[in-house]
Amino acid sequence: MVDVIIMKAVSADNQRHADIVRRSLDDNGILGLNIVSSPGAGKTTLLEKTIADNPDIKFGVIEGDVFTSRDAKRIEKTGAPAVQLNTQGSCHLTAEMVENALPKLKLAELDIVVVENIGNLICPAAYALGEHKRVVLLSTPEGSDKVLKYPEAFAGADLILITKMDLASAVNFDMQVVLDDLQAVNPKVEPWPASVVTGEGLDRWYKWLRNQMEK
Amino acid sequence: MVDVIIMKAVSADNQRHADIVRRSLDDNGILGLNIVSSPGAGKTTLLEKTIADNPDIKFGVIEGDVFTSRDAKRIEKTGAPAVQLNTQGSCHLTAEMVENALPKLKLAELDIVVVENIGNLICPAAYALGEHKRVVLLSTPEGSDKVLKYPEAFAGADLILITKMDLASAVNFDMQVVLDDLQAVNPKVEPWPASVVTGEGLDRWYKWLRNQMEK
Repeated sequence: MVDVIIMKAVSADNQRHADIVRRSLDDNGILGLNIVSSPGAGKTTLLEKTIADNPDIKFGVIEGDVFTSRDAKRIEKTGAPAVQLNTQGSCHLTAEMVENALPKLKLAELDIVVVENIGNLICPAAYALGEHKRVVLLSTPEGSDKVLKYPEAFAGADLILITKMDLASAVNFDMQVVLDDLQAVNPKVEPWPASVVTGEGLDRWYKWLRNQMEK
Repeated sequence: MVDVIIMKAVSADNQRHADIVRRSLDDNGILGLNIVSSPGAGKTTLLEKTIADNPDIKFGVIEGDVFTSRDAKRIEKTGAPAVQLNTQGSCHLTAEMVENALPKLKLAELDIVVVENIGNLICPAAYALGEHKRVVLLSTPEGSDKVLKYPEAFAGADLILITKMDLASAVNFDMQVVLDDLQAVNPKVEPWPASVVTGEGLDRWYKWLRNQMEK
């Protein structure tokens, strides 16, 4: 019972901080995204490409990692401001961590704040970070069977990008399995194929970002 | 403080169950392995291939997943007995779960029990399952930078297999980065390249298994 009581307390506390984050974003007219995936599904690479291809959009990035600041350094090379959060062993970001990171970005100058979550398809699903939209990436080498194996992550997605489509045939990726499994888990969201290598699907993703900014 | 006290209690309790698991394995002369990786790094595929290529070794498999029994069904097709554990949202197996699964395998008939952990490079690192050896897989599409990003998983490895080497050049995988990062995290363990597609490294892995069985 103690475990359950603590989890509820954590959850209510997280929601309180998520509300504060959302208010900060809204006060500054900023679109907030929470990007979730397995390790190495291509979150940082997609962000680098997105920032480079859309110089008129002012991005700020909050990079979550268990350890290291490698991803923030990669983002800074694009010219966008980046804040690195290290969880020191914890498997997800919390809204409080994001709340504490926000003042390090000049919000008044930004259009979109992207939070790149910890590489993990389990824990981040349970923690809202105050984002407007949650984007979940599934890379083709991970296999077509991941939606039902990690349903909570995919159920919480507002957008699902199937990354590394350039490797799809080499790894026998079967999009139909993803489509079928999403019918059970999140039937409203259609998975969009994408590849930063071939450029497949990027225009559609950029158009989606611009549409969300206008809302 | 409550969190810390509970974590210590969980940890001591987990170790007690891990000791029970280890004793069961030892009493039956069984080698116990705990396989850890990201989602889709190829744990189940490596196991399928290993079981098929070594018909004289009697494997039993405990499959961990958050949801679904897809992996146990895949293993059963090889002819090896498999037990599926579902954590229903938890991000790692515990030794108690393994202890409860062991009686479902006929231990007296087995040489090796493989526990395939939850697809996650963070949480499983903290939970011993009573295994003799922990095998960590890193697949080339995940990228060369994962050792320092998930150091606890790689620090706890007795063997590291770099899987999907057939994709290494397509994804610009840089083994030197892995080697350099392991110097900081786990200098005694050399990462072994492997691919179930080309067969690279499999003989070495099978020889390692047989050597461990004799200990």
